Amino acid sequence: MDKQTLYNNIKQKSSFLCVGLDTDLEKIPSHLLKEKDPIFAFNKQIIDNTADYAVAYKPNIAFYEALGPSGWESLQKTLDYIPKDIFTIADAKRGDIGNTSKLYAKAFFEVMNFDSITVAPYMGEDSVSPFLEFEDKWVILLALTSNAGSHDFQVLNSEQNKPLFAHVLEKSQQWGTDQNMMYVVGATRGEKIAEVRKYAPDHFFLVPGVGAQGGSLEEVAKYGMNSTCGLLVNSSRGILYASSGDDFGNAASKEAQKLQQEMASLLEQYCS
Amino acid sequence: MDKQTLYNNIKQKSSFLCVGLDTDLEKIPSHLLKEKDPIFAFNKQIIDNTADYAVAYKPNIAFYEALGPSGWESLQKTLDYIPKDIFTIADAKRGDIGNTSKLYAKAFFEVMNFDSITVAPYMGEDSVSPFLEFEDKWVILLALTSNAGSHDFQVLNSEQNKPLFAHVLEKSQQWGTDQNMMYVVGATRGEKIAEVRKYAPDHFFLVPGVGAQGGSLEEVAKYGMNSTCGLLVNSSRGILYASSGDDFGNAASKEAQKLQQEMASLLEQYCS
Repeated sequence: MDKQTLYNNIKQKSSFLCVGLDTDLEKIPSHLLKEKDPIFAFNKQIIDNTADYAVAYKPNIAFYEALGPSGWESLQKTLDYIPKDIFTIADAKRGDIGNTSKLYAKAFFEVMNFDSITVAPYMGEDSVSPFLEFEDKWVILLALTSNAGSHDFQVLNSEQNKPLFAHVLEKSQQWGTDQNMMYVVGATRGEKIAEVRKYAPDHFFLVPGVGAQGGSLEEVAKYGMNSTCGLLVNSSRGILYASSGDDFGNAASKEAQKLQQEMASLLEQYCS
Repeated sequence: MDKQTLYNNIKQKSSFLCVGLDTDLEKIPSHLLKEKDPIFAFNKQIIDNTADYAVAYKPNIAFYEALGPSGWESLQKTLDYIPKDIFTIADAKRGDIGNTSKLYAKAFFEVMNFDSITVAPYMGEDSVSPFLEFEDKWVILLALTSNAGSHDFQVLNSEQNKPLFAHVLEKSQQWGTDQNMMYVVGATRGEKIAEVRKYAPDHFFLVPGVGAQGGSLEEVAKYGMNSTCGLLVNSSRGILYASSGDDFGNAASKEAQKLQQEMASLLEQYCS
């Protein structure tokens, strides 16, 4: 999917919601466990109930990998089931030397047909660039994450008096453009997201950390939005596990709609 | 596997060779392609022919993932086939927020039964520590890699006038010990590996970059070895694809033996 199409979808749905498919056998309603493929059965209902409000789905690959080969089957089925006009993100955080990254790119962009993949920057250019060679596919590079450990290295100041994440943002713009690269930006305080935005004014940011992980959608929009929205805000648990009963699909739908409505008004306010 | 057992194996075999199982359908002898599982058929012969000379096997997970679910089956069969007294490394370079890293740990240490996994440090402590909670399992943390992109961020100087990789080495020693953590150190020049060794005198280093990637085994041993050897040196392509004919097993055996003999003399010289 290209950037214009993504932006058009955002405008059409008045939403920049990404639904994180962190599907966990221990958390899905127990009546699904008798299904042949409980993970897919759950995802299918989540997708059916949220597709009107979401512009992206983001399966967290670890949740599928942890199940062995059958998890990969569930992932493939889920991916095939997502409507074609919705952006898909493999949250895989891969990153390896060039010839290995090529294989990961092949796995996620060809064997599976994801629109994008999250990539870790530690190994530098040749670990990232193989993913950029696919037309209309995206790298979503970790810049500033929202977990506690993000303070260990990402904010380490360089001798140029700049945090590591800023070096990642600057350097990586020599490898890709705002047409094939986004950034994971876990900043949820306004001041911080404004700082990150300075380094990458035109790029889309994938923002985790709103919802279960706390963080204000209003602040993110106010300080992070740009002229093509520039934001995909993820919610996983808050939607997936809104109810643990038979009505989980309906509950997920309501949660997604609530977020979409908030997003609609933020889009009107900060991106019009 | 615990550290003492690994060191005993090194002494017993007079070897610190790790064989990288970067098994590629496009490179294995064509007569294997008619097998039901060509990847496993190849790996089986490689293992049969190198197990006397190797103390570790390291499947590069991307090569299996790129094949879809069947690749994971080949990987599992390969892992089950590796003799139990040989250390196994999942070269996966994972790293994600805490609850996701827990799932990766479960995938590689429980669903599969690897002894260790390579992990990327960018996301900090909570992305690494879930892997450290398993007894006799190891994290092999990326510190200084050998690819071109390693110059982009890993050697970036901090305001304390220390490269990022040194911060990774120092900080991570607050999370794990030399009994459950190793480092990927792609330095193959003596001076560089000596510098890295200063920051982590007791830890094992996994050294790629000898063989096809260039780099001198003699230099690595001279400057990198410690009192319990402290090195696992990997060779992949040089062994796997020593011959493209029917005799590939025999050719792999010869290459592995050649490295083992060189290692035996280095162990005598620098670790006795």
